[in-house]
Amino acid sequence: MSEGMKPAFRKVPSIGKARREISLKNITQVGDVNAVMKAFNQHLHLRLMKDRTVSTNHDYYTAIANAVRDKLAEKWIKTQQHYYQENPKRVYYLSMEFLMGRTLTNTMVNLQMSSIVEEALFQLGLDIEQIEDEENDAGLGNGGLGRLAACFLDSMATLGVAGYGYGIRYEYGIFSQKIDNGWQVEHPEDWLKFGNPWEQSRPEKAYEVQFYGRTDGESWKDAQIVLAIPYDTPIPGYATKTCNSLRLWSASSPKEFDLSYFNHGDYVKAVLDRNTAENITKVLYPNDNFFEGKELRLKQEYFMVSATMQDILRRFKQNVEGGTPVASALWSSLPDMVAIQLNDTHPALAIPELMRVLIDIEGLSWEAAWSICTKIFAYTNHTVLPEALERWAVSMIERLLPRHMQIIFEINHRHLIDVTRSYPGDVTKMQRMSLIEEGGEKRVNMAHLAIVGSHKVNGVSAIHTNIIKNETFKDFCEMTPDKFVNVTNGITPRRWLKLCNPSLAELITKSLDSEDWIRNLSELERLKALDNDEVFLGKVLEIKIANKRSVAAYIKEQYGIEVLPESLFDIQVKRIHEYKRQLMNVLHVVTLYNRIKKNPTANHVARTVIFGGKVSFII
Amino acid sequence: MSEGMKPAFRKVPSIGKARREISLKNITQVGDVNAVMKAFNQHLHLRLMKDRTVSTNHDYYTAIANAVRDKLAEKWIKTQQHYYQENPKRVYYLSMEFLMGRTLTNTMVNLQMSSIVEEALFQLGLDIEQIEDEENDAGLGNGGLGRLAACFLDSMATLGVAGYGYGIRYEYGIFSQKIDNGWQVEHPEDWLKFGNPWEQSRPEKAYEVQFYGRTDGESWKDAQIVLAIPYDTPIPGYATKTCNSLRLWSASSPKEFDLSYFNHGDYVKAVLDRNTAENITKVLYPNDNFFEGKELRLKQEYFMVSATMQDILRRFKQNVEGGTPVASALWSSLPDMVAIQLNDTHPALAIPELMRVLIDIEGLSWEAAWSICTKIFAYTNHTVLPEALERWAVSMIERLLPRHMQIIFEINHRHLIDVTRSYPGDVTKMQRMSLIEEGGEKRVNMAHLAIVGSHKVNGVSAIHTNIIKNETFKDFCEMTPDKFVNVTNGITPRRWLKLCNPSLAELITKSLDSEDWIRNLSELERLKALDNDEVFLGKVLEIKIANKRSVAAYIKEQYGIEVLPESLFDIQVKRIHEYKRQLMNVLHVVTLYNRIKKNPTANHVARTVIFGGKVSFII
Repeated sequence: MSEGMKPAFRKVPSIGKARREISLKNITQVGDVNAVMKAFNQHLHLRLMKDRTVSTNHDYYTAIANAVRDKLAEKWIKTQQHYYQENPKRVYYLSMEFLMGRTLTNTMVNLQMSSIVEEALFQLGLDIEQIEDEENDAGLGNGGLGRLAACFLDSMATLGVAGYGYGIRYEYGIFSQKIDNGWQVEHPEDWLKFGNPWEQSRPEKAYEVQFYGRTDGESWKDAQIVLAIPYDTPIPGYATKTCNSLRLWSASSPKEFDLSYFNHGDYVKAVLDRNTAENITKVLYPNDNFFEGKELRLKQEYFMVSATMQDILRRFKQNVEGGTPVASALWSSLPDMVAIQLNDTHPALAIPELMRVLIDIEGLSWEAAWSICTKIFAYTNHTVLPEALERWAVSMIERLLPRHMQIIFEINHRHLIDVTRSYPGDVTKMQRMSLIEEGGEKRVNMAHLAIVGSHKVNGVSAIHTNIIKNETFKDFCEMTPDKFVNVTNGITPRRWLKLCNPSLAELITKSLDSEDWIRNLSELERLKALDNDEVFLGKVLEIKIANKRSVAAYIKEQYGIEVLPESLFDIQVKRIHEYKRQLMNVLHVVTLYNRIKKNPTANHVARTVIFGGKVSFII
Repeated sequence: MSEGMKPAFRKVPSIGKARREISLKNITQVGDVNAVMKAFNQHLHLRLMKDRTVSTNHDYYTAIANAVRDKLAEKWIKTQQHYYQENPKRVYYLSMEFLMGRTLTNTMVNLQMSSIVEEALFQLGLDIEQIEDEENDAGLGNGGLGRLAACFLDSMATLGVAGYGYGIRYEYGIFSQKIDNGWQVEHPEDWLKFGNPWEQSRPEKAYEVQFYGRTDGESWKDAQIVLAIPYDTPIPGYATKTCNSLRLWSASSPKEFDLSYFNHGDYVKAVLDRNTAENITKVLYPNDNFFEGKELRLKQEYFMVSATMQDILRRFKQNVEGGTPVASALWSSLPDMVAIQLNDTHPALAIPELMRVLIDIEGLSWEAAWSICTKIFAYTNHTVLPEALERWAVSMIERLLPRHMQIIFEINHRHLIDVTRSYPGDVTKMQRMSLIEEGGEKRVNMAHLAIVGSHKVNGVSAIHTNIIKNETFKDFCEMTPDKFVNVTNGITPRRWLKLCNPSLAELITKSLDSEDWIRNLSELERLKALDNDEVFLGKVLEIKIANKRSVAAYIKEQYGIEVLPESLFDIQVKRIHEYKRQLMNVLHVVTLYNRIKKNPTANHVARTVIFGGKVSFII
């Protein structure tokens, strides 16, 4: 594996040593270390059917991942039993992207078994840092939107919220970028090639998802069927009993899929044609803040929404009355038991889908269904870039989801009556606020649909929320001002401080004499008291320079370039793309360089500028 | 699962009771039963992440299969270590089909742990017969040819021969047939849907297989690459330490596969296009004794052959000198270390492939390479039906495998010189014996290739071998009579007697006062001594009638039809197809009926005629 870009960062010895020192200090039970070693050996021998003479680093990774997973399994089963008995309100986070990254180290941190596992592997004569590098990134997202989803899952589990992530198990996640002979090339990321020990398929809980067909005005007929197979990933909280789930759907062809062939040749062709169903979850669209409008993407969105809504309603019904049909009156309690957060408009079809199920299948009136819908959904807006907003052609929705198009028209009809009531005679306002954009090809404005169908709409930073309130969705904010709120994006301090920077994390814990900050980041405010503490500040600088030396050593090993660890590191790592404006950054570098040339004797700060693309692994 | 045809056979209580009685008698160690129960629980909780409240029968199957597999893993690792150290001659069985069927019960028999597992499941409150029925058939074959391959694997392992099976891991094996509203319909068999606990993927041991491209007269250039990923299934012998392997190849797209795309749309399309590579191992051709000549089938054959030959030569090199380049002289020892059996002509491309590798890559002379080849290969002919013989169009081989076509021409050229030497001036004999058929589209006669490249050719029954000697391959047999031999097809008595008919097996063991017959079927001859033993014959009849009562109960439950257990059961179970002549059988039934009508008072034997198609599971 990993020939192009060897994971040399991990080989820088200073990191390894510091880490082992921290580990050793934290081990209290020798028995725990032995138990991990035993589990490791069992998984290597029995699961992988290998001995040490033929094992690869990836086998070692799989063995230790499964040993850690065993601990997760126990917590996960207990949490699910607890939820089943207590029946708390569930929070569902629907997102087309979950940028989970690597799971092994994060799980070890959250289960507080890092030190034990590290010592076990050390005693087995294995280098944990090489083994960790064997894990492929679960790169099921483009960037911030997907990583936000992943951080929310970690936080909900840590806070003990009964939170569920729902998304798609893309066979190929975000691509890798490489500069090849001066040209940028993109490669698909075959992240499942060596298996994924963190997921558990649940083929017996598959749902049917419908596409195409027609509507007779009241229901959906003659649709084609695709199966949605759930894959569950346990999401452990930090230092808690809670272990939630991320459920990702994989598309599969049911046997009914166009298989009315008889003779040999057609039989083989018919089997191969099953790919059209399975293609739905084959690849993550690499559209970061850009709306492309391809049918396959719309299929992905509805596929995820339909399977998820079926699962949410199954769980509700099961808890309400053990899975038997739910009396109409009971449906009104749905918003007390279910909250659904839409991460951007990508899952916004959940709104007409819930309406369809409640009206066509459960027999509720439009008014009852709509009242339930608007209490359940909330919508997070991520961008105000016009080219990023989803505007699906009415003709495409009509073909793929005929009944949903009818329902969207009806939602719009009733919405525009409300608008007229508030602003009688203001035709241009009606046009601006319509879910349907006219002029040219008719399109559904998915943001408008999400706003109308939700009780809350949030931006992801103060400045962004102000823009959506005062510009992008000004009309809606005027009409329903209480709906619009700001929720600044946060990150989990487990992954982004404790795991990323163990030395700094340890210093903070020691300085605050408490680990509370790991669960409650606002505890860091107490560090303000040390803002003049020379000893503390000295240690922070020491840690910082040690980390920078590691980066410098990595750059030396990878590229043969010497950089000054004492210089300012000015780093831009993200996809190489026009709109990310790496070129503007380069122009800034030229400007700085010209300034030095112009005035070489001035006191310039030494600066190292580092660019990185979307390279997670070159295999 | 299994709604259409419920596995009700297993529910007939008489079978279950008889079986449990046999089990209880055989258990000597209570500790073994407890260990199986513990392993079962571990796999259920930790691997499947389920508790008993949410587990399905399929989960129980997976848990117990893995508990049994743990025992296999130990044997398998030890056998591989032993082979590595001792370096015995290897026997490679190349077959496009391995009709393995179900594995759990067979493994329990061969590991002699049936009684222990049955008791463990009984104590867990589970019905082993329901659980066994959860296993999907590994139906990777059409019929006799594929089942022969499976039986050979069982026998080689039992005899302690270092035998390896090589084939293809079809995602969809042999179809199921169903009569739907009077019409026969075929469904693909999605046998891997719920996972396969018996296989272990080895993605780190993938090989590259080439297709298309061109040849410059000496080597193969500009070919496209497809990856062959090995999946290993352990093959335990009966009551022995030996555990051999069946290695099946799955096609995967390498990252190089036509991925020089840049913009978003093309990137997604490029990923989806990877299906063309993966389609190679998607589906088993349902051609039973019929040659269809489709390119995808030729791809399958070469894919299996190329990956297998690479693996065989890798193992030889590794054992000869630790994987370093092999000196030319050492290659002559290849036939001492390697025997390759071709199951029909489907893997016959292995002959030109080995020639290509030895000449183009290893630098041997034609003569040296050919001498090695003809010592290594042996060919089993299965059919004399002209429509079943493989005759690939030269134009198709030229496009898909340009270098192989050259090599086949050269083999033929030298072969025809030999023919001329034996039969000077006999032009029609040359035409008849040529590997290339002229007249119309040029075609390669694969049987002729296999005969010329092998040191032994066998038919599979005395009568069949006589036909190939005296008719089908008469010319070849005249020229090289020692090459032609008969090897009558056998079956493994483990599966086809001990497992299928436990009561009869137990009676035999008791009557012979020995279990030797399980390993050596000719021991059954000793039963001749009992051919007048009233007690013995009475017990045989008792067992037979009990088994027939089970069949009758099954028919009653499934179809509501009462049949007489005392009647003669006249059964034809195989694919419903013209050439299987079920219609002729029906005409025979009509004839019998007419005879009764004509002469109702005669002493007719009561007869129940039963037809079955290829229904392995309707899910």
